[in-house]
Amino acid sequence: MLVEPRKCIAKMAGYTPGEQPARSETVIKLNTNENPYPPSPCVLEIFRNVEADDLRRYPDPAANAFRDAAAQLYGLKREQIIAGNGSDDILNIALRAYLDPGQILAYPDPTYSLYPVLASIQDAKVAPVAWEPGWKLPVEGLLATRARVIFVAHPNAPTGTPVALAELRALATRFDGLLLVDEAYVELADESALTLLATHENVLISRTLSKSYSLAGLRFGYGLGHASIIAELMKVKDSYNCDALSISAAVAALQDQDYARSVWAKIRSERERLQVELMKRGWDVIPSQANFVFARPPSGDAAAVYANLKSHGIFVRFFNTPGLTERVRITVGTPAETDALLAALDG
Amino acid sequence: MLVEPRKCIAKMAGYTPGEQPARSETVIKLNTNENPYPPSPCVLEIFRNVEADDLRRYPDPAANAFRDAAAQLYGLKREQIIAGNGSDDILNIALRAYLDPGQILAYPDPTYSLYPVLASIQDAKVAPVAWEPGWKLPVEGLLATRARVIFVAHPNAPTGTPVALAELRALATRFDGLLLVDEAYVELADESALTLLATHENVLISRTLSKSYSLAGLRFGYGLGHASIIAELMKVKDSYNCDALSISAAVAALQDQDYARSVWAKIRSERERLQVELMKRGWDVIPSQANFVFARPPSGDAAAVYANLKSHGIFVRFFNTPGLTERVRITVGTPAETDALLAALDG
Repeated sequence: MLVEPRKCIAKMAGYTPGEQPARSETVIKLNTNENPYPPSPCVLEIFRNVEADDLRRYPDPAANAFRDAAAQLYGLKREQIIAGNGSDDILNIALRAYLDPGQILAYPDPTYSLYPVLASIQDAKVAPVAWEPGWKLPVEGLLATRARVIFVAHPNAPTGTPVALAELRALATRFDGLLLVDEAYVELADESALTLLATHENVLISRTLSKSYSLAGLRFGYGLGHASIIAELMKVKDSYNCDALSISAAVAALQDQDYARSVWAKIRSERERLQVELMKRGWDVIPSQANFVFARPPSGDAAAVYANLKSHGIFVRFFNTPGLTERVRITVGTPAETDALLAALDG
Repeated sequence: MLVEPRKCIAKMAGYTPGEQPARSETVIKLNTNENPYPPSPCVLEIFRNVEADDLRRYPDPAANAFRDAAAQLYGLKREQIIAGNGSDDILNIALRAYLDPGQILAYPDPTYSLYPVLASIQDAKVAPVAWEPGWKLPVEGLLATRARVIFVAHPNAPTGTPVALAELRALATRFDGLLLVDEAYVELADESALTLLATHENVLISRTLSKSYSLAGLRFGYGLGHASIIAELMKVKDSYNCDALSISAAVAALQDQDYARSVWAKIRSERERLQVELMKRGWDVIPSQANFVFARPPSGDAAAVYANLKSHGIFVRFFNTPGLTERVRITVGTPAETDALLAALDG
């Protein structure tokens, strides 16, 4: 006989990832915030030098080689770091460790659309709180939800807007639950919430190598926080949640900061050009500190712009979600990709 | 301030993986059921030919290339297959989709010690039911638990004993919840529960490439079941739970069945020799259909045997768990590794 799943699972829809056209299709892919530049050559070397034993044997369950590399880079201790199978894994583990079914996950809205999906799987409630004007953190509104866990994306997606450190600090100080700051795009922003870790034991930061290190295909993220939080997360994660090669590759990527910084400089520069060019064409552009721009075409008909660009082989992201339908999210590509995008818009 | 985790997390201990000595140590590692032979050369080729775009871009979230390869191999449809970050990921997803907090996970006992850990994280109850004499499936006992989900490892760990297909069929027929058959070692057994999928919509089979395909370091497992079960599991899994290279490598491994079968033949043959040699030395050996042997030394002092072997640089698994302390679990290695093990025992 057929078995019914849990009610909370039966009624949920699941997360919808951005379109991934087949690799054989020649497209300009500005829809899932992938980095247009290759990862560090040191990362490719790891794979090219793979040995059978790297695959045959179980990896280090704690990924300590990565934890030590990250500890050195950020001036933290190994015990303050957890490695994950993408930062989605970290978000998932954090909710499973800190949020009971029926409790509340709060977050400023709009934001990363995975958050309510993860809450549904945990059979928890969500409390989306509208950003204050100018995309300021709604501190009072978030506290008023009586949430047990708050997620804040900094910079936020899909808006690209940063959250002021003073606002995050105020929230962390007054909140008695877990505050997770999702820094998936932070390497392209002006500042990180990392300094809060020294003063606030209830802050957990999630990071990923998907965007800033050009490793979306690798699935590697990490969490930074108080050792007591990390110890609980380590209990919840899958025993071997990171594969052996991804751990080595992540270490190589993190240790090649010169390469990473050169890539980030190119993306920041191109982000400025893209924003200026869109504004010249009458678009309303929210100033971004991420590797994408969330912008409104003069017509306000973002669906038509999305469809037109797709007909030119250019993929951008359109969110068919109330409140978001007048804008498209455009990933910052190479200068040539920006040129093609602008030409299609002008054509 | 410090934040308390969920009560169910605070009180649990987490899973303890087997020891992983540093790669620089020269040891004979017969403690975590790794395959002593390298993976198919086709798998190594995947990594050596890696391109930047394989890493830079997100993987296919559904891993359809793998699903199609598995569908062809097993005579199933793509919709009956889900790929996971190791089979632990599949077990985890299955519980999260089908077991509410407070409900019961039942399993024959002793078995894979991860099961109660996963139940604790879900804040669910467990009902271990002792195997019947001769390691027969306790069908009545499992049904009497009023479980919502039953896990049966076939062959079982750490005993290596198979479960008769007729017993599994009887259980599936009479059970109104989800029956997960954990076939982590099944390629080394005489038969699989795969045939049940055609007749029983409540059966989910989990498999892994860790053991039989020598890919423990890769983290790749999969689930096989009715399309309606798989659809629910797809909602619960992380959006991109398998990395791009692991998907390609898993396809390559699965498609090189000639290589895989040659490895399995060597392990079966060496398993027989190991069992015979231990029995010659007075050990009580449970006949195994997996890539390990669970055996009692004549002294019954398994802890001493474990420590003695470790002093010779030979790692086997000792479970300091009531009911298991008189035996060690020895992974089937190469003939040379078996020779070294026997020499250490005889020395």
